Amino acid sequence: MDAPACHTDIIDFGKGQPSLSLLPVAAWRTAADHCLAHGDARLLQYGVDEGDEGFRESLAQFLSRRYAMPVATTELVVSAGASQALDLVCTRFTRAGDIIFVEEPTYFLALDIFRDHGLQVVGIPIDEEGIRIDALQDALVHHRPAFLYTIPSFQNPSGTTMSAARREQLIAASRMHDLLVVADEVYQLLDFGTVPPAPLATHVHTARVLSLGSFSKICAPGLRLGWIQGAPDVLHTITQSGVVQSGGGLSPFVSGVMRSLIDLGLADAVLDGLRRVYAERSAVLCRAMRELLPAVTFVEPTGGYFVWAQLPAERSASQFLSVARAGGVAFHPGTRFSSGGGFARHMRLSFAHYDAPELVEGVRRLAHALAG
Amino acid sequence: MDAPACHTDIIDFGKGQPSLSLLPVAAWRTAADHCLAHGDARLLQYGVDEGDEGFRESLAQFLSRRYAMPVATTELVVSAGASQALDLVCTRFTRAGDIIFVEEPTYFLALDIFRDHGLQVVGIPIDEEGIRIDALQDALVHHRPAFLYTIPSFQNPSGTTMSAARREQLIAASRMHDLLVVADEVYQLLDFGTVPPAPLATHVHTARVLSLGSFSKICAPGLRLGWIQGAPDVLHTITQSGVVQSGGGLSPFVSGVMRSLIDLGLADAVLDGLRRVYAERSAVLCRAMRELLPAVTFVEPTGGYFVWAQLPAERSASQFLSVARAGGVAFHPGTRFSSGGGFARHMRLSFAHYDAPELVEGVRRLAHALAG
Repeated sequence: MDAPACHTDIIDFGKGQPSLSLLPVAAWRTAADHCLAHGDARLLQYGVDEGDEGFRESLAQFLSRRYAMPVATTELVVSAGASQALDLVCTRFTRAGDIIFVEEPTYFLALDIFRDHGLQVVGIPIDEEGIRIDALQDALVHHRPAFLYTIPSFQNPSGTTMSAARREQLIAASRMHDLLVVADEVYQLLDFGTVPPAPLATHVHTARVLSLGSFSKICAPGLRLGWIQGAPDVLHTITQSGVVQSGGGLSPFVSGVMRSLIDLGLADAVLDGLRRVYAERSAVLCRAMRELLPAVTFVEPTGGYFVWAQLPAERSASQFLSVARAGGVAFHPGTRFSSGGGFARHMRLSFAHYDAPELVEGVRRLAHALAG
Repeated sequence: MDAPACHTDIIDFGKGQPSLSLLPVAAWRTAADHCLAHGDARLLQYGVDEGDEGFRESLAQFLSRRYAMPVATTELVVSAGASQALDLVCTRFTRAGDIIFVEEPTYFLALDIFRDHGLQVVGIPIDEEGIRIDALQDALVHHRPAFLYTIPSFQNPSGTTMSAARREQLIAASRMHDLLVVADEVYQLLDFGTVPPAPLATHVHTARVLSLGSFSKICAPGLRLGWIQGAPDVLHTITQSGVVQSGGGLSPFVSGVMRSLIDLGLADAVLDGLRRVYAERSAVLCRAMRELLPAVTFVEPTGGYFVWAQLPAERSASQFLSVARAGGVAFHPGTRFSSGGGFARHMRLSFAHYDAPELVEGVRRLAHALAG
């Protein structure tokens, strides 16, 4: 517990990214070889606005299998990752000054994307079952939002998964108020054994829902490859954008390699490998926290990347962060995830970036800082 | 000249893309092998906001050599192509309702990007030396634009290259009026032997200039990889965007392969090969037009992708397009490139997509349609 005064090797629980050892370099090389061996020059050409059809077919099969529901190729448009998709949704479905609803708390960089588009953000509180429908109904009395942004499964930062009942209520509200629901479902497939309710993508044909998916969390972030799932008329608004049309769709080359990764069965293997590792890392982190940080409260996650932990009463996470940093450990303080300055006692701890000994050492440092 | 009534194999001079045969599949495979053989997992990881530093170093060397001027790594931010960069510039430097200036005519899909951002477009006429500074000065009396969008070399659609004198005058106007100049320089390196004046990128440290570059025209469109060159303070506004920060920079994996392509000397070889082919294709198209379409006027381009041709008096390009289509040939009519419904007699013909016999056959069909 006698940590040195200065750590050059800070353990940063703020890093919402996999450790380098988890990145599937060998599998990706195999897929690139497979893809380029065909010598298909269309990989390097402008493509159709929806993105490469062959890739979208393979993606539809992958999602049908992993979501355990039918996903059609025509429901999918290729994106350069979920945040690029979210940016595009803002460009095509909003104007500066528009109101949008977010969960409170929500993903902090999504808040920055909304800021870039000049949007007014209204936070809707969540509880252990996800977004609070009573609060949503109240907000809908006062506002007419351009859309609601939600992270239904293994939410960033709270780790919360919206219950099946809440999902039904949210979709009912979407229908009643003609509310566009933008579901960030990048953690949907990252469960640790307990499968979450079906993704909101299930509802794209029966409500105004766009589901954003990505290979960043289930394969590798550096690919910058994702998808938007929606009904054809909503997707049309996306594909008719100048940036998509000028680019000739998004990421044809990377799409081609990913198609090979899926078709060779490697995408499933990579995803299942990540699920195993993250389940172990989450368990290690939570066990260490229970042992070494008994005054810090949290709900153990059942999937995703994050533990959302609350400091004892009257402790500020921002102030604690300064002390923690001096002790060689860091995290993202809760206020960063709030549209209204809330969650001052919360910390978001990611378990994706470190192996078990580092996670335990990080918790030791937190405990030392908290006791100091 | 007896073309059949119905052509299933329409020759579409509207296609602003290379033919598949020109895409460097073998070179790209070599580069991918080289890059992935190193087994560097950082290729698949989130990166820094500016984009991969190793790639930016190689890019800086490539540009220093090809632009024949010093380009520093710190002046470069990675983009997912010039249109993605332009979209990002709109998001970060404008708000819906803002005025921007464009050249008249200009790239039609840039107009769509500006529409998506709710911008009001004011066209500044060009002549054979590029943008007319007198018209720009007049417009600056009445408007305070968020930026001016220009394509200085081998302009899309006109093929015009801004003279050195005009560039100096434009930069002087930029300084005097604190006008942000967004230069789309994607054709800068695609000369047919006569090097255009230095890119506007030369002025990034002495005026408010952002230069957008891309590998789409000089290597392959399907990579969706480009760059933004600018002064650090202007680039900071770009890299502080939510979408760039959330993505961990743009395109780490493709950047890594492109770094190998550059370092292996293959990017230079690909570019020089394309310049040779496009020079030949341009010459073939122009020769055929002079012979078979003597009533159509145009200036033979010295680089780029396009011939901007004017129909005889009182012919509408849009009406002619219907006739031409029935005769198995198409093009983009001039009005598509106008912010104010101008250029009704103009056609943009791209010579990038077809080989010599197809180009000649296309012109034959145009001549047949024009005579019909």
